[in-house]
Amino acid sequence: MNNILVAQSGGPTVAINATLAGVIQAAQTNSMIDNIYGAINGIQGVLEEKFIDLKKYIKDTNDLELLGQTPSSALGSCRFILKSWKEDEEQYKKFIDIARKYDISYFIYIGGNDSMDTVHKLSEYCKENGIDDIKIIGAPKTIDNDLVGTDHCPGFGSAAKYIATTFAELERDISVYQIPAVTIVEVMGRNAGWLTAASALSRVNGGTGPALIYLCETNFDTEQFIEDVKEKLLDKNGILIAISEGLKDSYGNYISDILQSDAVDAFGHKNISGTGKVLESIVRNRIGCKVRSIELNLMQRCASHIASATDINEAKMLGMKALQRAMEGISGEMASIIRTNSNPYTVVYSSLPVGEVANHEKKIPSYLISENGNDVTKEMLQYLIPLVQGEVNTLYENGIPKHMVF
Amino acid sequence: MNNILVAQSGGPTVAINATLAGVIQAAQTNSMIDNIYGAINGIQGVLEEKFIDLKKYIKDTNDLELLGQTPSSALGSCRFILKSWKEDEEQYKKFIDIARKYDISYFIYIGGNDSMDTVHKLSEYCKENGIDDIKIIGAPKTIDNDLVGTDHCPGFGSAAKYIATTFAELERDISVYQIPAVTIVEVMGRNAGWLTAASALSRVNGGTGPALIYLCETNFDTEQFIEDVKEKLLDKNGILIAISEGLKDSYGNYISDILQSDAVDAFGHKNISGTGKVLESIVRNRIGCKVRSIELNLMQRCASHIASATDINEAKMLGMKALQRAMEGISGEMASIIRTNSNPYTVVYSSLPVGEVANHEKKIPSYLISENGNDVTKEMLQYLIPLVQGEVNTLYENGIPKHMVF
Repeated sequence: MNNILVAQSGGPTVAINATLAGVIQAAQTNSMIDNIYGAINGIQGVLEEKFIDLKKYIKDTNDLELLGQTPSSALGSCRFILKSWKEDEEQYKKFIDIARKYDISYFIYIGGNDSMDTVHKLSEYCKENGIDDIKIIGAPKTIDNDLVGTDHCPGFGSAAKYIATTFAELERDISVYQIPAVTIVEVMGRNAGWLTAASALSRVNGGTGPALIYLCETNFDTEQFIEDVKEKLLDKNGILIAISEGLKDSYGNYISDILQSDAVDAFGHKNISGTGKVLESIVRNRIGCKVRSIELNLMQRCASHIASATDINEAKMLGMKALQRAMEGISGEMASIIRTNSNPYTVVYSSLPVGEVANHEKKIPSYLISENGNDVTKEMLQYLIPLVQGEVNTLYENGIPKHMVF
Repeated sequence: MNNILVAQSGGPTVAINATLAGVIQAAQTNSMIDNIYGAINGIQGVLEEKFIDLKKYIKDTNDLELLGQTPSSALGSCRFILKSWKEDEEQYKKFIDIARKYDISYFIYIGGNDSMDTVHKLSEYCKENGIDDIKIIGAPKTIDNDLVGTDHCPGFGSAAKYIATTFAELERDISVYQIPAVTIVEVMGRNAGWLTAASALSRVNGGTGPALIYLCETNFDTEQFIEDVKEKLLDKNGILIAISEGLKDSYGNYISDILQSDAVDAFGHKNISGTGKVLESIVRNRIGCKVRSIELNLMQRCASHIASATDINEAKMLGMKALQRAMEGISGEMASIIRTNSNPYTVVYSSLPVGEVANHEKKIPSYLISENGNDVTKEMLQYLIPLVQGEVNTLYENGIPKHMVF
């Protein structure tokens, strides 16, 4: 028996189920594969033997399509970091025992940085202990786009499309009145500002887009911020400002922390507002104009109704690629995307040792950030534009998108 | 010369430009009409003669389509309440002078409650002063759905579709982990909870939807809220709670005000958080589980990429109806929708004296709210479902929706 085990981990994205669909599709069309098990709640579910038979749920291409358009992890997720095997070998032995019990030849783990760490540790353990009947391959996902070794990460393109569309729509919304007004939009990203940069895509159809873009890669200076805002208000009444949630000052302290050290809520507890709320308060108190802050919050990672078709297709291909590498007898790699051209956009699907990926973080390089640190460059737009192309044909029922639930 | 003047007012919606498109389309196909003027920034722009020639911008059905899918008011908006003519007749005389200067026979004003007040005052002034060469008709719009005299308001159905879709997607997002977690979603509505009620539509395809729904029509009791949340957490780990921004206690005080009277921000100023943030703080302090609050904020009124086709079509029809009534020689009415059946859904387009609409507010009647006040009834779903049916064929360019800007 050649069985597959697949699991998902980390924060939800719009594309992680498309990668799962890719694994299932590649397995279903391969006569070498018998059963396809899905583990519920990631590696934690693997160790608890919480398996489902995916062939029972995914019977035809309609099911695959529906799975691919369902946001978040259909198999559930976990936040679980394996200890090193020298520290705690039991979990590793348990993994091997369970894998053999279910005749698992290939384990595909779809996730972000922590998940790639798991793939790395498990495959290294197998290698060091001469276990070669279980091949372990990672498939990337993260809206943050901060994994190294791949041009971009599945999930990012769809989140970028949601963010750009939302900025374009917000620009129309805030442009109707004649009074000076600032709208600050806080975008996810603690250490990498890729998602915030995607707000600039709202300019591609002639829109003004955000007047200012502050990324967490650039030290944030409150006084410069106030000057920037005042200057932009001279040009236009209603302005949008895109900010990363993880803005930091030159000492590396989060802006959201340092500017509200004395604030307490009604319970007398420290009142931690997001960065957007803090900057809203600064604009209100220092500039005095109308101001509002908006958090794109969870919507930016689960708005599957406006997924990027490019993203969803690539996510699926990476699932297929991951299984293919495992079936070639490879273990300890992550499937990846290499961009071969931007215009026209072409990619090849590849893979690399997962040790080169795990525990690294891809931040925005400085040539993609404008010199004065409050915008992105043209090169950034060239990088981003291909990733948001194409719309998915979302299946609606009763006026609401349909999702697959296991 | 028989010219038309059209203007938009009040808060943005996804459908207000579809009503404008309806007026333009009806005018373009009518040989009795010469010029179509659009006033920039509502009645304020009318009084300042800020007119544009809409025929120059809208040349064919493609332009009409694009206008209809553009969120917010393409002609801009204003928050301007006319004084009574007995208090300040000058503005009324100015309006008449300008209308005659431009040979305006028909003035169509698209907006919410304040705009219908303007239509009422202007038409009453004309009537009382024997002016019958200018016919003034209102066309409704408001995401709040709180106008009387119409089954529902254009803009509401699209906002409802956005809200229901977002709740369905959020449900998938928050369901991946195994720990108790509460996600509170704050929806617009200071006095009417229709939009919050729309969150229940996320159940139509088998989803659980919000575990609890609190509308501003029901007095909010904090202790009961805590009991409700604790009870729901016994059933399910991750729960969604929908709340109206305008929740009030039994004395009519806003929950957001009374529960944070002592809170101050880093500047020592009173820190006004939204209702969601206040309830988040209550759950954290009184229940102690993981909790997050989300504001759907401006996105719920400008997310045109997920507009309801039913809403957009009806909005267009109401623009046509408004012009038709004016051309029949009627003044001082608002175009309206009468629902003749819910399943199958059928409507007729009608109109009523605008005085019956202006300065009234349609709140949710009690039979649409569950007895214990923390959910809606089946009848509410029957009312809502037809309004979110159908998807618009959004035009994308470079991966981002295209909008029309005058």
